[in-house]
Amino acid sequence: MNTPAFPSAFAPLQNDSFIRACLRQATDHTPVWLMRQAGRYLPEYRATRAKAGSFMGLATNTDYATEVTLQPVDRYPLDAAILFSDILTVPDAMGLGLTFALGEGPKFASAVRDEAAVAKLAVPDMGTLRYVFDAVTSIRKALQGRVPLIGFSGSPWTLACYMVEGAGSDDYRLVKTMLYSRPDLMHKILQINADAVALYLNTQIEAGAQAVMIFDSWGGVLADGAFQEFSLAYTSRVLAQLKKEHDGVRIPSIVFTKGGGLWLKEMGQLDCNVLGLDWTVNLAKARAFVGEHKALQGNIDPNVLFANPAQIEAEVVKTLNTFGTPHTGAGTGPTHIFNLGHGISQHTPPDHVASLVQAVHDHSRAMRA
Amino acid sequence: MNTPAFPSAFAPLQNDSFIRACLRQATDHTPVWLMRQAGRYLPEYRATRAKAGSFMGLATNTDYATEVTLQPVDRYPLDAAILFSDILTVPDAMGLGLTFALGEGPKFASAVRDEAAVAKLAVPDMGTLRYVFDAVTSIRKALQGRVPLIGFSGSPWTLACYMVEGAGSDDYRLVKTMLYSRPDLMHKILQINADAVALYLNTQIEAGAQAVMIFDSWGGVLADGAFQEFSLAYTSRVLAQLKKEHDGVRIPSIVFTKGGGLWLKEMGQLDCNVLGLDWTVNLAKARAFVGEHKALQGNIDPNVLFANPAQIEAEVVKTLNTFGTPHTGAGTGPTHIFNLGHGISQHTPPDHVASLVQAVHDHSRAMRA
Repeated sequence: MNTPAFPSAFAPLQNDSFIRACLRQATDHTPVWLMRQAGRYLPEYRATRAKAGSFMGLATNTDYATEVTLQPVDRYPLDAAILFSDILTVPDAMGLGLTFALGEGPKFASAVRDEAAVAKLAVPDMGTLRYVFDAVTSIRKALQGRVPLIGFSGSPWTLACYMVEGAGSDDYRLVKTMLYSRPDLMHKILQINADAVALYLNTQIEAGAQAVMIFDSWGGVLADGAFQEFSLAYTSRVLAQLKKEHDGVRIPSIVFTKGGGLWLKEMGQLDCNVLGLDWTVNLAKARAFVGEHKALQGNIDPNVLFANPAQIEAEVVKTLNTFGTPHTGAGTGPTHIFNLGHGISQHTPPDHVASLVQAVHDHSRAMRA
Repeated sequence: MNTPAFPSAFAPLQNDSFIRACLRQATDHTPVWLMRQAGRYLPEYRATRAKAGSFMGLATNTDYATEVTLQPVDRYPLDAAILFSDILTVPDAMGLGLTFALGEGPKFASAVRDEAAVAKLAVPDMGTLRYVFDAVTSIRKALQGRVPLIGFSGSPWTLACYMVEGAGSDDYRLVKTMLYSRPDLMHKILQINADAVALYLNTQIEAGAQAVMIFDSWGGVLADGAFQEFSLAYTSRVLAQLKKEHDGVRIPSIVFTKGGGLWLKEMGQLDCNVLGLDWTVNLAKARAFVGEHKALQGNIDPNVLFANPAQIEAEVVKTLNTFGTPHTGAGTGPTHIFNLGHGISQHTPPDHVASLVQAVHDHSRAMRA
């Protein structure tokens, strides 16, 4: 596609706590949203999914994608919505043929495992991803300014894992074999991925995304040294190309490396606003370590949601207290966005999510009093 | 069993580099062994396994267990042997019914998921594990003092993961549900496991093990706070009960928490001799951080072994150099035991292991020159 025609007028944002916290500005409570909040644990999601017939049927249909994105926001007083989509849309648009077999994870028809396959890769035409941008615009309209909409992408390295493995993996043997034996090919893939991800996120921003998140889901499987060279450097290449504002409004960016706690110092130097943390990281130590550079997002273990509401509340309080009192008043300072340290489990009782959200709001207000 | 009758006279140890490095004493090269070095990547292992009929048929037969333990030591100039066994022998001896279905992981017939199941648990009679101790003695004899023999066990937490899940898991939902909703039950399991593991390792030492290793394979899936309470505290309880010497000879202990790099400071306080590290940890930083308390073992990504020999050698040199020159001369100081950061893959070309071992020996000798 050439010049995209996206609307520029949307309803004004009512609850801006998430955006303010991303920008390290004070809020009257700690904003909360949950990774994979539009998902299988919700009966209304399962109903829409049944109508759509398949996961990609859901993700590629503007109405369905809008419907499921809004479901958790309608059910719980969450402080942000996140686009319903998949992290593998970009390699699919590169022609690798993404499918989701029932009960299994994603699969690519054409894995990228040799020089010839790498030579064929290119930044895809954003026209092939029009369904994503249409969903962004539709969701943004449907939200009517209630909460901000987060757009997202997989990181260059995480996309490369799936592109080379052809599916999920538990040992990353194929992608790491390429990394160690043909680093030149791996760098070539990662350059293309980084430029594609940057264009993809910028187009989501033009379509209406009010913040963007890069999911480096598999950064944590890399060795020290390899992480910096093959994951972090390309996340950085994405960030360098990202729009920092749109229509005069700042667009915060979030980077989440699952299992990346050991590299917080390096990640603190990234040109993004927020670092996402998993549950292995101590928030007080991370706050001290990252310093005045970034807001922090995370990081409760999603399995806490299988305990009873009183125990969930106790864990929420512990997590909020570990971060400590956030910035209040004018200017900027340390801020915390409450989230899980990984996507919510499909087995989660929906009522328990209500307990968690309420505990975050109640206790975080009390902490500021 | 009551008083075990184990032999106390074995051939004198010829290559003591591994034991010396565990005790932070100088060696003329960096000792190397590989987690899961007796395994499916070796054609001779596959031949013995075929004769044995099943994994447990292999592990419970003294002759077969001895044969496969010695295979990698016969093929490569490794500096230690490790008992061929499984980490789940202890819960099996508790009556949970361990089986290995073909092509799948381990399974327990009776998972431990409620108060009644926990109430039935007890430290097993070591007589039911006689096959392990017999294998230890047999292997020790067969080694004829060439290299030391390492005994091992799963950590209390790692055993509990399998006992509650009933099998491997990718989300640890059941065990974490118990942890967060019934911490009292989880602590009860862990106490029993810790006392069982200590007795199990001490009996391996009496049977002839010259060092012992605790595999906390799943410690890294815990949240900060939960790790200290549910994994580290019970590893510590094991260590407090361990024999520090046998027949007047020191018996070093190694603790390896996969994914535990963020907790190195706390692990540095454990009463053990060596900390095992996975590939996400920078050895120079770990050396500085842990200080003068422990030897370090690790930590190359096993996927490096899929690169070609020249590239394997380059990665070995990088790993050795990252640790830096070890202690030389009298007394004690920083020492490094070369290993992988995880078990070797069944797909590894055996010749590549030869390249790795030679590169470790050659470069580590050159570093000391």
